[in-house]
Amino acid sequence: MRDDTVSAAPVPLKWVGPISISGNVMSGLHEVPLATYETPLWPSVGRGAKISTLCERGIVATLIDERMARSVLFEADDAGTALAAVQALDARRDELQQVISRASRFAKLLDLHHQIVGNLLFLRFELSTGDASGHNMVTLAADKLMDHILSTIPGLRYGSISGNYCSDKKATAVNGILGRGKNVVTELLIPREVVTRRLHTSPEAIAELNVRKNLIGTITAGGLRSANAHYANMLLAFYLATGQDAANIVEGSQGITHAEVRGGDLYFSCTLPNLIVGTVGNGKDLAFVEQNIARLGCADDREPGENARRLAVLCAATVLCGELSLMAAQTNPGELMAAHVNIERKNAR
Amino acid sequence: MRDDTVSAAPVPLKWVGPISISGNVMSGLHEVPLATYETPLWPSVGRGAKISTLCERGIVATLIDERMARSVLFEADDAGTALAAVQALDARRDELQQVISRASRFAKLLDLHHQIVGNLLFLRFELSTGDASGHNMVTLAADKLMDHILSTIPGLRYGSISGNYCSDKKATAVNGILGRGKNVVTELLIPREVVTRRLHTSPEAIAELNVRKNLIGTITAGGLRSANAHYANMLLAFYLATGQDAANIVEGSQGITHAEVRGGDLYFSCTLPNLIVGTVGNGKDLAFVEQNIARLGCADDREPGENARRLAVLCAATVLCGELSLMAAQTNPGELMAAHVNIERKNAR
Amino acid sequence: MRDDTVSAAPVPLKWVGPISISGNVMSGLHEVPLATYETPLWPSVGRGAKISTLCERGIVATLIDERMARSVLFEADDAGTALAAVQALDARRDELQQVISRASRFAKLLDLHHQIVGNLLFLRFELSTGDASGHNMVTLAADKLMDHILSTIPGLRYGSISGNYCSDKKATAVNGILGRGKNVVTELLIPREVVTRRLHTSPEAIAELNVRKNLIGTITAGGLRSANAHYANMLLAFYLATGQDAANIVEGSQGITHAEVRGGDLYFSCTLPNLIVGTVGNGKDLAFVEQNIARLGCADDREPGENARRLAVLCAATVLCGELSLMAAQTNPGELMAAHVNIERKNAR
Amino acid sequence: MRDDTVSAAPVPLKWVGPISISGNVMSGLHEVPLATYETPLWPSVGRGAKISTLCERGIVATLIDERMARSVLFEADDAGTALAAVQALDARRDELQQVISRASRFAKLLDLHHQIVGNLLFLRFELSTGDASGHNMVTLAADKLMDHILSTIPGLRYGSISGNYCSDKKATAVNGILGRGKNVVTELLIPREVVTRRLHTSPEAIAELNVRKNLIGTITAGGLRSANAHYANMLLAFYLATGQDAANIVEGSQGITHAEVRGGDLYFSCTLPNLIVGTVGNGKDLAFVEQNIARLGCADDREPGENARRLAVLCAATVLCGELSLMAAQTNPGELMAAHVNIERKNAR
Repeated sequence: MRDDTVSAAPVPLKWVGPISISGNVMSGLHEVPLATYETPLWPSVGRGAKISTLCERGIVATLIDERMARSVLFEADDAGTALAAVQALDARRDELQQVISRASRFAKLLDLHHQIVGNLLFLRFELSTGDASGHNMVTLAADKLMDHILSTIPGLRYGSISGNYCSDKKATAVNGILGRGKNVVTELLIPREVVTRRLHTSPEAIAELNVRKNLIGTITAGGLRSANAHYANMLLAFYLATGQDAANIVEGSQGITHAEVRGGDLYFSCTLPNLIVGTVGNGKDLAFVEQNIARLGCADDREPGENARRLAVLCAATVLCGELSLMAAQTNPGELMAAHVNIERKNAR
Repeated sequence: MRDDTVSAAPVPLKWVGPISISGNVMSGLHEVPLATYETPLWPSVGRGAKISTLCERGIVATLIDERMARSVLFEADDAGTALAAVQALDARRDELQQVISRASRFAKLLDLHHQIVGNLLFLRFELSTGDASGHNMVTLAADKLMDHILSTIPGLRYGSISGNYCSDKKATAVNGILGRGKNVVTELLIPREVVTRRLHTSPEAIAELNVRKNLIGTITAGGLRSANAHYANMLLAFYLATGQDAANIVEGSQGITHAEVRGGDLYFSCTLPNLIVGTVGNGKDLAFVEQNIARLGCADDREPGENARRLAVLCAATVLCGELSLMAAQTNPGELMAAHVNIERKNAR
Repeated sequence: MRDDTVSAAPVPLKWVGPISISGNVMSGLHEVPLATYETPLWPSVGRGAKISTLCERGIVATLIDERMARSVLFEADDAGTALAAVQALDARRDELQQVISRASRFAKLLDLHHQIVGNLLFLRFELSTGDASGHNMVTLAADKLMDHILSTIPGLRYGSISGNYCSDKKATAVNGILGRGKNVVTELLIPREVVTRRLHTSPEAIAELNVRKNLIGTITAGGLRSANAHYANMLLAFYLATGQDAANIVEGSQGITHAEVRGGDLYFSCTLPNLIVGTVGNGKDLAFVEQNIARLGCADDREPGENARRLAVLCAATVLCGELSLMAAQTNPGELMAAHVNIERKNAR
Repeated sequence: MRDDTVSAAPVPLKWVGPISISGNVMSGLHEVPLATYETPLWPSVGRGAKISTLCERGIVATLIDERMARSVLFEADDAGTALAAVQALDARRDELQQVISRASRFAKLLDLHHQIVGNLLFLRFELSTGDASGHNMVTLAADKLMDHILSTIPGLRYGSISGNYCSDKKATAVNGILGRGKNVVTELLIPREVVTRRLHTSPEAIAELNVRKNLIGTITAGGLRSANAHYANMLLAFYLATGQDAANIVEGSQGITHAEVRGGDLYFSCTLPNLIVGTVGNGKDLAFVEQNIARLGCADDREPGENARRLAVLCAATVLCGELSLMAAQTNPGELMAAHVNIERKNAR
């Protein structure tokens, strides 16, 4: 009765670009693959990409931080026992690193945070995970760390391998504040003339719309660390095209667009604190994923982590392209609707 | 230099189930398609599905509400002008419906909300949209409504076709409170013996873990209307398999798992206020999507909206299956890790 | 051993102003009482008040909405039963009003909202409450409504007289979205010359600081519907001076400052969606409170609710004065610190 | 026209207790002063206090952490410049401490966090501040730190002495995650017989209500790191009675009540991550405040910070008493209303 054959959902994919990128990780002109059912996204990102090539430095991408986190949950005898455990573990980070090293040769303990609620102890392990996004690496490390802690610290009992203080694929504040994934800031300084001629709007209009819509509008909606037009769209398409665990667009969507007029030109930036991407690991062994990652230049022989950092920067630059294009469109009454109708007609399959 | 040919990201897909479902929309045994790079999801949902067939009523799914929203942004002369506009429009809902009807014969105005911030006016139109998820329908309607409002209400100027008080694909509170998408509650009463024998845990352990991890853990993480283990995983896989705009898993992830022990048995429920799915519209004309929707029984000749409601219920039931399975696994030290390792080995392609 | 005599905490109080106010509730020049241990607040609000008198219309205050809410909690047999109850009650609003009228002759049912989570039903009753802030009125009404509902709707059981979907004195999104208390927007258009000469800064500097600090800064902090410098300070001082339940500054603090440059002048606005104030009820029978409310002109013989609306406007205008003054100070390096040091020295008792 | 004389708002104050307290800071029986217009709070806290004396260890209070924070805002040339500044400052913590020591001999730099949004740099300085709550101490330190940083790090410009990533008196997530104020957990194990006889309810009823109302109810309301019935009430009354900056109840209200049944007894805990209290500083030189702090035993000659820690524990224990009493009342239909009516009648002045 049940069909056990694995088939596929062939999500339409197109390479878009090139995008002009510079920054502390990489530079150059790069095309990016976007897999999506919402095909108007392609020309939208393409328009932003074109703009990037008309700006002196292109999109300047700065990698701020990278880490992957897993929080475990212990039940302690009481809050005092939980606190004593935290203090003991803080003093034993070398020992914890040794345990982690038995789980993975790439994983390094970067930091350790905790929350104590009543007698519940949430421990958040933050690791560097090389070229992997690191979900499995941190879970495996957390598993071994729990065993070690339970056998060496008295008064604790197993609660859960994940205590949701991680947090994975949920709308929370912790990831933006403590870090989870790659934190990338992208900036583009667009000459006024490019804004007016190519985007048919003005630096003032885009900056004002950003304040009113992305900042104030999202705040009124009860937004959480979110101030953008549609990061999730670009993230989904890029994640699917490169074999990422695309459910991580949930936290990925929590970023901030900041735009200002500078000397008549437009400063436009996207801050993406939670890009969770990797070039190895789950999903990366599919043939088309391997090809796409290779074509992106992220399968080269480099220092561990370097390929994943490049991928994160490519992703972040893609987000800026799509965000800029939509923001420009929304400054003009009717443009968005007209664009959608036209594009859907053209792309009709 | 650039390859313009559209190719595809063939995301692995498998049909899982059957799931036993009853409730105010549909009932019966149903298999569901899940497209994902995280293939351990298949046996995980499959285990939950099996459990559903061992419970008397299966998963009881209650559709609470359905609507799609778009908020527009006006600049008003001042707050007083914005307030006068809101009062005028509230008194003219019939007229607004006429404007909407010119954009779509399916769209019905259900409600109208607003936020006034200084002299900014955010108007949130809430429509029923038949079998479509309704993104484009509300945008088209909003476009016509803005034209109409600008030409009939003095003191307003165009701000944006979307003011982010909608909100689309962002972590906000407004959708859960005012409604956006289908709001579906799923409930399953699992006999104690099924919990112990099939899930190798106890009702008490699952209920306690839910409080500590999904409720308290997520709260400590600064979660927003979110209390679950991994709704986003099931939503992504179901959305991709059925041609949905999967970036809507951002708000989809904001749901609440509630579990209690009742007379020794386990009451387990998932509340999903923001399922944004449709059986027609963007992405639904792809051949494999058409087949999948048809195989789900959601392409039949029914009242407008009925196919989409069935799809939402199938999706919600799928979420419960995956959530139950993971929660059960996390009550047992080591089980999650062992399961992942085993499954990844088995599924190695 | 225990001293049962009620004594007092004599919080220092000073009348500040006058503030120039206009709008849809009242107009004129008004002094306001501020009770606080943080005495630098007095000259700070005083400076803002002075500015208001130099602007053509003064502070324009627009009352957008008013209501008080209480949510009750029922346990239902299941979600379907909860939904049926909601539908039945929606159709019986007249009957609910009759029950409410037995609790208070002032209370009117304005709206009814709900949340269904699993088999839990949260019902949020929204009432107008005349000149009272209405905490007790809605609780009393909710008590009678619960009795009535439990005796007329099958399948429900008592959960709690308050289900926290109200919500009272907590950092939540629901009050800003559905309304609780008075929603007042205050706006002030300040001539450029007043900004430069009196506030020693520029319209551009204040508008820019507001975006960077109040909007973006608060968003990075994981703020919830909050974008201001220090509303809570003014609210506390005004609430204490007028006998309000000052713990309601928690939700009162959740408001939005919006500033823009307009034709070279400064547009400065404070949006306060949750001012919970009254001129009668708990705390209002203390002699000094009676005197203060009378001196504010809020104890006059007016239509029910009109005195409370005036009080809300006075409070909102006070908030704008203090917010403007601090924002101006923070545009200048060192000014805030110098001001604090000077004022504390002067106020040293 | 204006009355410049400083008068007072004499908020009614009563000593309540004694409360039985133990833990890592202090132990014994202690009465506490509560200043409030909501006088039913007195018997409510008194009932909880009585319960505490009937439990073996009384309320066990664990001080988890203490710090005060101020975030400053810099404008950087670009994100890369901001990142370089962060890296440089991280390597110069000793130097930063020297600057801080010039502002205060008590202030010690505990940690340094940052957020980079586009080219904006938010630096959060976290200090220990002895017996002071520390608002002014951190602002003064931040002022000197900004001067130092601006004169030693190139590419930065003054943005604001406060960038709202602190955050002070606002509903945000950062304080609970990174710490601000005293973090105190209070726990009480109440014998079943005490719950039934004195609180007229059961451990099961209180634990269940806590999950449904404080956890789930607040989550549906879009709550942020908040899960309690009314912490703000007790905090306000205690803060006013002891000369605290009571506007800090905004973040103080963001705590979590956790209750469970243990071997038939009731485990009841309140986690208060953001108690911002001091025994010296602003407001503490008022005569009645001095007396109250002395009577609390928090003006004794102790190690710096020890008096403030005791005060925080007394405050936290007070919160538990009031929370327990209200939660117990809400398990019983009608009790809350009856209690309010009776008490208000008795307390009528």
